[in-house]
Amino acid sequence: MKHFAYAIATAATLLAATPAQAQFAKPEDAAKYRQSAMFIMQTHVGRVAAMAQGRVPFDAKVAAESAAVAEFMSKLPWPAYVAGSDKVSGTRAKPEIWTEAAKFQETAEKLQAEMAKFSAAAKTGSLDNIKATLGGVGSTCKSCHDQFRRD
Amino acid sequence: MKHFAYAIATAATLLAATPAQAQFAKPEDAAKYRQSAMFIMQTHVGRVAAMAQGRVPFDAKVAAESAAVAEFMSKLPWPAYVAGSDKVSGTRAKPEIWTEAAKFQETAEKLQAEMAKFSAAAKTGSLDNIKATLGGVGSTCKSCHDQFRRD
Repeated sequence: MKHFAYAIATAATLLAATPAQAQFAKPEDAAKYRQSAMFIMQTHVGRVAAMAQGRVPFDAKVAAESAAVAEFMSKLPWPAYVAGSDKVSGTRAKPEIWTEAAKFQETAEKLQAEMAKFSAAAKTGSLDNIKATLGGVGSTCKSCHDQFRRD
Repeated sequence: MKHFAYAIATAATLLAATPAQAQFAKPEDAAKYRQSAMFIMQTHVGRVAAMAQGRVPFDAKVAAESAAVAEFMSKLPWPAYVAGSDKVSGTRAKPEIWTEAAKFQETAEKLQAEMAKFSAAAKTGSLDNIKATLGGVGSTCKSCHDQFRRD
């Protein structure tokens, strides 16, 4: 699974190296893209969190697979924060994403790091290991939303 | 990249092994999930298609990365076709997805196979190789939409 992580890291580097503006025909597409990635990520984190909270039976294989999808998705949204895409209908993106770009990027990188830990923990097959990483994932999501997402 | 493909194949197997109904709190979430996956997939295929059509300059690294994301996404939508989720607002899923389930599954598998060929071609760095696989991807998308998606 090391190679999978490597491939994901490579993919992220490539994404980061491409000018974001060139990747979307219009700002609406960029907003829809990042919302799509966030929704899939959230679905898979939620699936594992439900196991951690005892709401559904723990299934180590499903947890590992779900966490791997969440980790993959955590790499995708960032190039889609193209300039001007805080003006499109349906987005909750705050202007601070662009006016405080370095801070936003730091949070985005922190999320990816936490998601990698979460996914690595899920691969161990231990629910305790998973529980130990879910807090970091959740607080990073919340911190970014608090700063950069409108209510 | 072989290991990446293996990890993706493993992920798909795990997804397939989990009862779809158990994975979504409500049919609306399932519809939104599959639409999200389709949109990200379509974005990345479109990015490479634009290069193949000469609308944007060919960038082998971006093409390979985009195709890899598209391949990953092609594994995700299928467990989200949960029974009853053709009734939710905003979906164009036809009832045939469930009444002709074997045929739908065959098309879903064909898409994943075509997307794997596309991604493998993109990894060679040759635009000609990419062009040779894009037709298979496009016709599989279209064939499935013609049969299973409302206009």
